[in-house]
Amino acid sequence: MPVNLLAPDPQSLHAVPGVRIGIAMAGVRKANRKDVCVFVLDEGAAVAGVFTQNRFCAAPVQVAREHLAAGAGVRAFVINTGNANAGTGEDGLARARATCEALAKQLGVSPAQVLPFSTGVIMEPLPVDRIVTGLPAAVGDLKPDNWANAAEAIMTTDTVPKAVSRQVSIGGKTVTITGIAKGAGMIRPNMATMLGFLATDASIDAALLPTLVREAADQSFNRITIDGDTSTNDAFVVVATHQAGHAPITQLESPEGAALREAVIDVAQQLAQAIVRDGEGATKFITVRVEGGATKDECRKVAYAIAHSPLVKTAFYASDPNLGRILAAVGYAGITDLDQTKIDLYLDDVHVARQGGRHPDYREEDGQRVMKQAEITVKVLLGRGNARATVWTCDFSHDYVSINADYRS
Amino acid sequence: MPVNLLAPDPQSLHAVPGVRIGIAMAGVRKANRKDVCVFVLDEGAAVAGVFTQNRFCAAPVQVAREHLAAGAGVRAFVINTGNANAGTGEDGLARARATCEALAKQLGVSPAQVLPFSTGVIMEPLPVDRIVTGLPAAVGDLKPDNWANAAEAIMTTDTVPKAVSRQVSIGGKTVTITGIAKGAGMIRPNMATMLGFLATDASIDAALLPTLVREAADQSFNRITIDGDTSTNDAFVVVATHQAGHAPITQLESPEGAALREAVIDVAQQLAQAIVRDGEGATKFITVRVEGGATKDECRKVAYAIAHSPLVKTAFYASDPNLGRILAAVGYAGITDLDQTKIDLYLDDVHVARQGGRHPDYREEDGQRVMKQAEITVKVLLGRGNARATVWTCDFSHDYVSINADYRS
Repeated sequence: MPVNLLAPDPQSLHAVPGVRIGIAMAGVRKANRKDVCVFVLDEGAAVAGVFTQNRFCAAPVQVAREHLAAGAGVRAFVINTGNANAGTGEDGLARARATCEALAKQLGVSPAQVLPFSTGVIMEPLPVDRIVTGLPAAVGDLKPDNWANAAEAIMTTDTVPKAVSRQVSIGGKTVTITGIAKGAGMIRPNMATMLGFLATDASIDAALLPTLVREAADQSFNRITIDGDTSTNDAFVVVATHQAGHAPITQLESPEGAALREAVIDVAQQLAQAIVRDGEGATKFITVRVEGGATKDECRKVAYAIAHSPLVKTAFYASDPNLGRILAAVGYAGITDLDQTKIDLYLDDVHVARQGGRHPDYREEDGQRVMKQAEITVKVLLGRGNARATVWTCDFSHDYVSINADYRS
Repeated sequence: MPVNLLAPDPQSLHAVPGVRIGIAMAGVRKANRKDVCVFVLDEGAAVAGVFTQNRFCAAPVQVAREHLAAGAGVRAFVINTGNANAGTGEDGLARARATCEALAKQLGVSPAQVLPFSTGVIMEPLPVDRIVTGLPAAVGDLKPDNWANAAEAIMTTDTVPKAVSRQVSIGGKTVTITGIAKGAGMIRPNMATMLGFLATDASIDAALLPTLVREAADQSFNRITIDGDTSTNDAFVVVATHQAGHAPITQLESPEGAALREAVIDVAQQLAQAIVRDGEGATKFITVRVEGGATKDECRKVAYAIAHSPLVKTAFYASDPNLGRILAAVGYAGITDLDQTKIDLYLDDVHVARQGGRHPDYREEDGQRVMKQAEITVKVLLGRGNARATVWTCDFSHDYVSINADYRS
């Protein structure tokens, strides 16, 4: 059961001028499932992306990076679920390229103008024939208002499709930002088994887009963790079609640039949080805030040590205020000169630990009250400086084990 | 159910001349449970230890380090389960010291000659009165052949007591090495929620003992992982009573030194592996061997990435040869210049992946056969050099979640 997350109302998802989307059931792994999704972009759209840092990155990631670097102008994405085309060696690269070629041929563009994305089981050959056979149906389905179906078509173990849309005014014009994403395991910083596609009709200097994408990823997808595994396939890609009609944004620091940035980060954060809310087996949504660090980096280390600890996560699942486990995670996060007598810990508004020990006024029932909530904020004060960092995670339940023990069966 | 691990036969545990052990039921957390254990050492015994690297180390760890450093000659250990006396601030230190003082008084030694050890729940006040009340019974129970009871008295979520004993001949004399340990969660390198006590009657230069302890820990307790959490309390302590009657060992490289080292490491490894076999919820014992690395350190990183991955561990639990998850873990282990086309993967004798892709002869049923075993060796070849490393771990089951969600209830 996802935590406070409903499927998006399709009416709320604004089309993005310059972007058409088509869906097909290609039987990649299972029959009667939307599993191939095609994005087609009008000529002139700018595209930038960030990809997994896993050195065992999948074939489609390698090909997408190659095609982006070629600079031929991206005109289409082809996305499949059911098979990640990872751990597949040279043969996997050939299959990813064959998929791009097939779609390029149908659209009358060059293969280097197509980016491939795959998610699903690792180390099995991509059934490229089935995908290619499904492409005409996806192309036949192309339309601007297909975001809700696209959100559904990229799901794997997700239980709820994830899509967010908003509009802002820039230079007197209405600008749309719409995005979709999928989780739901192998989620940790520096991307995840995560695919995210976000499009806007804003007009922005193509040279600024990579910066905007990196910043948005850092504030969203790189701040979430479910199980600490970093996938081979994750990608977050942003399209700007320049069709909104306002004067091009040439600086992210300008009022127009700031408005776009704020909206893009907001959509990316909502998508990232949706992934956590629908994390495999999640029953709780946990915000971990670490303050008072000497550097942002050490705050992140502490936040992730807490967010990755199976002992902390099972305690949240049990609604058990076994909060010493949080202190233990703070202690092994890797700050070698940490002074435990400076640490304070809060659970929402409850002051649990002061100066490294149990707060004299802390009562078990207060901790229990907060632990029973579906949304909980853990706050750690390090007492070393002014840096801070936040990450989002979920608890660790029986269902996580069931989902991952049964995933392929 | 522990994996191929039986409770030790008390007859197999040789007493160590110069060491007496006493047990009591002090009701630290629960009634009618052996929960306090006292070791008393003859005068002249040498003691060395390694302790948790967690910066939130528990009060007893701080006091034990202090007392060891004071160099007054250790005469006793006082060990309790049920409460870790961690995350307890200044008050926790006072309680750990009070425990040492109480035992010192009964034994007629100085408090600095007593080392305290605690394991159990974090961030709750140590019930020092109950421990002190239990001490006379423990002291009354002191005897040399009490190792089996001691192994039982230090258990927390362990399901089987862990004790190993062996004898070797050094300089014509029979030398005994006997040890006990406890797990079973919060186990990862650089110690764990782990307590290990090993004693020998060997005669060894006191200055060599710290080196021997570090080496033994590196080859054993620092090579295991259950859930990736590093506890606040772990300690591994070795006692040498010098009573075996052979000429003192003054070099670890001498034949006598090598014989002792080999035996101590063997006992420590057996204890460490026993902890994994009895890991919380474990149903399988997994050996992860990484070979062909440029450095031992990078081999360890890869081995631990595999051994810590919840996705890999749930696949083992499910007997599902979803081996792409292992490749994904190799990829995110932190070797930035890893070439995935050089990676080979074996599951026992089955060659699963070659040059980063599925081996052409690999058949799912062969992977399945190995995955169903209770003991499995994963071998990864990195193709970068000649370094290697091995770690031991277990799978990740429903029971892990149950045990840790219910631990305090």
